[in-house]
Amino acid sequence: MRAPRRVGTGTNQEAVRRHNLGTVLRHVHRAGQLSRAELTRRMGLNRSTIAALASELETLGITEHSGPSEERQGAGRPSTGVRLAASGPYVIAVDLTVDRATVARVGLGGRIQQRAHAATTGLGEAWQVGAAVATLIRRVVADAPPSAPLVGIGIAVPGLVRRGDGLIRLAPNLEWHDVSFSSVVLAALGVEIPIVVANDADLGALAEHERGAGVGIDDLVYISGQVGVGAGIIAGGHPLEGVGGYAGEVGHLRFDPNGLPCHCGSVGCWETAVGGHAIASAIGWSPEKVSQLPEHLESLTSASRELRGIGSDIGRGLASIVNAFNPQLVVLGGYFGSLYPLVRDEILSGLSGAALSAAVDSVTLSVPALGDDAVLLGAAEAALEPLLVDPVGSIGAALLDVPARLAG
Amino acid sequence: MRAPRRVGTGTNQEAVRRHNLGTVLRHVHRAGQLSRAELTRRMGLNRSTIAALASELETLGITEHSGPSEERQGAGRPSTGVRLAASGPYVIAVDLTVDRATVARVGLGGRIQQRAHAATTGLGEAWQVGAAVATLIRRVVADAPPSAPLVGIGIAVPGLVRRGDGLIRLAPNLEWHDVSFSSVVLAALGVEIPIVVANDADLGALAEHERGAGVGIDDLVYISGQVGVGAGIIAGGHPLEGVGGYAGEVGHLRFDPNGLPCHCGSVGCWETAVGGHAIASAIGWSPEKVSQLPEHLESLTSASRELRGIGSDIGRGLASIVNAFNPQLVVLGGYFGSLYPLVRDEILSGLSGAALSAAVDSVTLSVPALGDDAVLLGAAEAALEPLLVDPVGSIGAALLDVPARLAG
Repeated sequence: MRAPRRVGTGTNQEAVRRHNLGTVLRHVHRAGQLSRAELTRRMGLNRSTIAALASELETLGITEHSGPSEERQGAGRPSTGVRLAASGPYVIAVDLTVDRATVARVGLGGRIQQRAHAATTGLGEAWQVGAAVATLIRRVVADAPPSAPLVGIGIAVPGLVRRGDGLIRLAPNLEWHDVSFSSVVLAALGVEIPIVVANDADLGALAEHERGAGVGIDDLVYISGQVGVGAGIIAGGHPLEGVGGYAGEVGHLRFDPNGLPCHCGSVGCWETAVGGHAIASAIGWSPEKVSQLPEHLESLTSASRELRGIGSDIGRGLASIVNAFNPQLVVLGGYFGSLYPLVRDEILSGLSGAALSAAVDSVTLSVPALGDDAVLLGAAEAALEPLLVDPVGSIGAALLDVPARLAG
Repeated sequence: MRAPRRVGTGTNQEAVRRHNLGTVLRHVHRAGQLSRAELTRRMGLNRSTIAALASELETLGITEHSGPSEERQGAGRPSTGVRLAASGPYVIAVDLTVDRATVARVGLGGRIQQRAHAATTGLGEAWQVGAAVATLIRRVVADAPPSAPLVGIGIAVPGLVRRGDGLIRLAPNLEWHDVSFSSVVLAALGVEIPIVVANDADLGALAEHERGAGVGIDDLVYISGQVGVGAGIIAGGHPLEGVGGYAGEVGHLRFDPNGLPCHCGSVGCWETAVGGHAIASAIGWSPEKVSQLPEHLESLTSASRELRGIGSDIGRGLASIVNAFNPQLVVLGGYFGSLYPLVRDEILSGLSGAALSAAVDSVTLSVPALGDDAVLLGAAEAALEPLLVDPVGSIGAALLDVPARLAG
């Protein structure tokens, strides 16, 4: 029951052309390469319009043409292909976890061109983490082709990020409150460039939806299992944000009123039963070792009774999520992805024992198709979005000397 | 990050005109009456286009023109108004609860023209309830102006309704499983007419968003507190449906693993703590009297200790909802609306003690601005939707003799 979008007779032709240019690019970004014939079919525009748009993208240095594609659309001439330029625009993606920063240079098509990371343990203050991130950014920008424009930075953080301005209201496991991390990073870099900060699970959901396990699936939940637990939700094909951008805080769904106190101030949140500290505690580890959990979980070939108990609680919590959002797919990210092969039966039985059968019947569980890069690639997608909406404006705004200034 | 909608150069002019016609009607439907100048402004079309569209709606018998509106847009001629025709198209709205069917004839603008209701207690079988509903429909159609076209029927049911075909997968408190209630009602009526069946809370959310407490609010949750508990969710301005249409089953969020068994097969769902039977039990009533609760709650001027306990549990459950959906507004429908004035402090303190402060800070609680008619008006909105998308097609498909055949 969506209200139809306005289609006026006074439509600005230039706006329509720019819009179509972005849509062509979005199709190529998703597919990697497409024939003009296929673009003609997908967009419902005529051949000459598509040819003109492809030519403009080429002039902008974003795409290049390939030889006639093998894919032939019935009779007629073979169609020229449109593919992403090797030294086209790129973004910087940052995945910040509690103890580590991963930075990558990512091109259109979700191509990770280079990555770098650093431990951030002990760097409590946001400005210290920002300086470490800036150093990593400089490193990956230095190796980029000199002609490639840097169009933006996307940063994933494990916390509540305010919609609109990207203020980190609360990143509990970093102990950050009301931090404008975008300002911190830009100040450390000393340049002005489009930058977006978003919740890690929201970005995981975005990436898995765009090019992972959730391609073509309009209703999915990506669960981020790190030290904390959160979710990114795609509903009806669009991110579920909530009024402030805080939707999906499933780690703080009520799980057991007689459970453990939660850092959020409540008691017995799901995170207290299945978060990093709960897993560490279940296997007898001290809280300090929580960052080594992923490697440990990956190394296991069978689950102890304690981990099976965690599996059941994961399933029981997923039941609330499935009842609330009725997703077609739940992607288990982070620790949950490592646990899934070990305690699959416990998760499934916890879920099906507690969720409505109509909702359970339509859901599938999966690990991220993008593996550990889901959140990082989501950060890249968010940073690429302005380019996909308006390639001309985005390339025009990209200062070509930024890479040089950053590297220098 | 919504993908832009395609705006092709090959747009079908007739499709655009019909679309614009629907959009004009949607504006008038929402506002009740608008000047052409205001329509011109809102739609970004020129005066003569708006005049032609208004004239076409008039020819279809949907609107009529009013004298120049008082509202003058700066200099220039006073603008003619467009208002809804008194004997224009209408729909039948049905609100089915566990023990009662309410049927109304509703015109554009959400105007309830006539209503009828009947007790359905003891009519366990869907065909019996369908026959009772059909009788009520005949009654309200009989009194409609003979020239007014009946364009559809909308039915709200307390249960899981499958998206797409409206099959009632489960209406636990009616004890219905896999019932095609639309077919049942149409068979009882003996006519073919567009009919839509949807979840009651989803329709309450729709109505409060369109013309109630949630006008202009893009992120809201409507909680339906009846014998069962459910929610309708508007996220980013659009209904949150989930893949099967079952999203928002917040009555089955995990609340207390040591709680009561729930009819859904799980244990300690929120509904077992705050549903109709829990409220009846808290005040020492037998389960059979649950249908008399609303009148009883409305008659109270203060809350007992037991009801205050229910209030706290309502708040604690709302915390999970606020953490999951981050709404700007929560509308407390049904019993919850009756309880709210009595246990407001307990609800608010249960909520703020358990929800994330960033999410609590941005949410307001409210009773339905449409009162007990919220769900009924939502059923009307759902039935009117095809008319608002394509007035020409919808009026054309409305068999003008249906009212006569139904009444005769």
